[in-house]
Amino acid sequence: MSEKKRTEIAELGEFGLIDRLTKEFAPKHPTTRCGVGDDAAVVAPPAGEELLLTTDTLFEGIDFDLTYFPLRHLGYKAVTTVVSDLAAMNARPSQLLVSLGLSAKIPVEALDDLYAGIRFACEEQGIDLAGGDTRASMTGLVLALTAAGHAPADRIVRRSGAGRHDLICLTGNLGAAYMGLRLLEREKRVLADVQNPEPQFKGYEYLLEKYLKPRPRTDIVELLAEEGIVPTAMIDLSDGLASDLKQLCRASGCGARIYLERIPIARQTSQLAEEMHLDPVMAALNGGEDYELLFTVPLALQEQVMRLGTVDVIGHITAPETGCRLVTPDGAEMELKAQGFPEK
Amino acid sequence: MSEKKRTEIAELGEFGLIDRLTKEFAPKHPTTRCGVGDDAAVVAPPAGEELLLTTDTLFEGIDFDLTYFPLRHLGYKAVTTVVSDLAAMNARPSQLLVSLGLSAKIPVEALDDLYAGIRFACEEQGIDLAGGDTRASMTGLVLALTAAGHAPADRIVRRSGAGRHDLICLTGNLGAAYMGLRLLEREKRVLADVQNPEPQFKGYEYLLEKYLKPRPRTDIVELLAEEGIVPTAMIDLSDGLASDLKQLCRASGCGARIYLERIPIARQTSQLAEEMHLDPVMAALNGGEDYELLFTVPLALQEQVMRLGTVDVIGHITAPETGCRLVTPDGAEMELKAQGFPEK
Repeated sequence: MSEKKRTEIAELGEFGLIDRLTKEFAPKHPTTRCGVGDDAAVVAPPAGEELLLTTDTLFEGIDFDLTYFPLRHLGYKAVTTVVSDLAAMNARPSQLLVSLGLSAKIPVEALDDLYAGIRFACEEQGIDLAGGDTRASMTGLVLALTAAGHAPADRIVRRSGAGRHDLICLTGNLGAAYMGLRLLEREKRVLADVQNPEPQFKGYEYLLEKYLKPRPRTDIVELLAEEGIVPTAMIDLSDGLASDLKQLCRASGCGARIYLERIPIARQTSQLAEEMHLDPVMAALNGGEDYELLFTVPLALQEQVMRLGTVDVIGHITAPETGCRLVTPDGAEMELKAQGFPEK
Repeated sequence: MSEKKRTEIAELGEFGLIDRLTKEFAPKHPTTRCGVGDDAAVVAPPAGEELLLTTDTLFEGIDFDLTYFPLRHLGYKAVTTVVSDLAAMNARPSQLLVSLGLSAKIPVEALDDLYAGIRFACEEQGIDLAGGDTRASMTGLVLALTAAGHAPADRIVRRSGAGRHDLICLTGNLGAAYMGLRLLEREKRVLADVQNPEPQFKGYEYLLEKYLKPRPRTDIVELLAEEGIVPTAMIDLSDGLASDLKQLCRASGCGARIYLERIPIARQTSQLAEEMHLDPVMAALNGGEDYELLFTVPLALQEQVMRLGTVDVIGHITAPETGCRLVTPDGAEMELKAQGFPEK
């Protein structure tokens, strides 16, 4: 590995650092009136639309491990975590505020990488970096992100609108991010004492991508708008299907029945789970960090939803007394349990 | 001291904790469409107004010391830090998002205190808690706050609008919060090994209040609106007058001349500085955390500004070549230096 240049944060000072990190972010979104560089960002939501706000924090050692998480990917993923919350409300993202807590040991070049990832995600989503804050932290890296988005009032979807007999729809497949994390943790353990570690990821690239660089499903927001579909309820999957479905049902005051054989699991997910003697269904139900969307639509929209092509119907809403239930291929039913996956 | 009840966070779980902390916050602001409990908050800014967003993070051990910072006050002050940024844009605050990073050792009762302070500040300012996030942190307490506010486009004030000969105006007095911090640090040192410490704060209650429970100057935003005054530039004083004035001048492309004898310093500030052999002027120029507002108005508004009663004119804007200069009572001029105050 070639020697990398290492600039200390103290050499630039707080303002110099902020200038360097934000200089390539030019505001482009039509709703941004004032971006980085003042006391607050100014946003003018499109006429007749409402503004949506969400915030997320990521802590080193809890939410990510810098020994194998490239900072570029971390920047990208941090944007995904907040933008995904906006997608879950059926809104379009427009601005981002990034606050960092930095330990003195992190060099400026590492922050350049982090911001390169943030910039890549912002460009992909067409959103502006519009503010933030940089502080010292006593320990590791802390990222606190706030995203703003907008949507017409009649297209905003909450968690609470699911009705009896509604179909439960899911984008993408589940458990891949979790298996990506397990793979990275395994290679870290195995190679802990090796001089020039060469981790073995071959054949599992998709899992790494789903864990390190998940894309928020804003494409689904666009697709639903094109098709004229407004879900009755929606949530993004960050804690795992079981936990998040239970949240949606709690907010909507209903129960649910989902069918095990309809839960999409990618080939690489099943393959690695088998190799590691894990149950791929458990990874799909409780793994978390999928950043897919789970939503409900009235039964009458079944054909229209099926035609979307990228969405699976995995079950339906029931009366609240049913609770949340999982139906196995042989027709047996069990209660869906939201549990942390056995130790990572 | 009576034995306090101590509930572990794990007993409640994440959702139970959030329910407990947020249950007494009912949304009241007319612009809040959807508050705590969904993926994102929904805000509808008043017709014709723009929305302002700002974010701030506070780290235990860097920004506050829990050995002497009561959690109730910390909650209050955290709200002040973000709301102050909105006041600095001449905007009215309306919503707040609170993200917490929690170490496992903090009991639920301590968080009740923190949220009592946040609630008190929200009620005082008439703003809604509209979302947030609670996570584990590896070490100390981390608070990440986002505030949203609104203002008519033609009343929003940036840092960049100050013009030649404009008057430099200041609310309140400076250096008190810094001296409050010094007092708390002194008592902590003195009483470090004492069994039942009884810190000596008599006569300096105002300094403690300015440090522990500063009020954001949203009253000035109202006053300016009533008087029909729109400042040409504005900033809130968090880093210290010297540093923040230089920021304003940098953004506006101008210089400034301020007069030492016009800088308001409270009696308790001078008194404690003298007792501790510190220069009260240095505390006023570089102490920081004043959360007062510094703004500029055209010379023609001099009388109108003086009539406000709560504002001092401390100098005027000059050509950029002048730089930022401080004039002493004997007429001597020196360059205004933004420096961290000598070690705390």
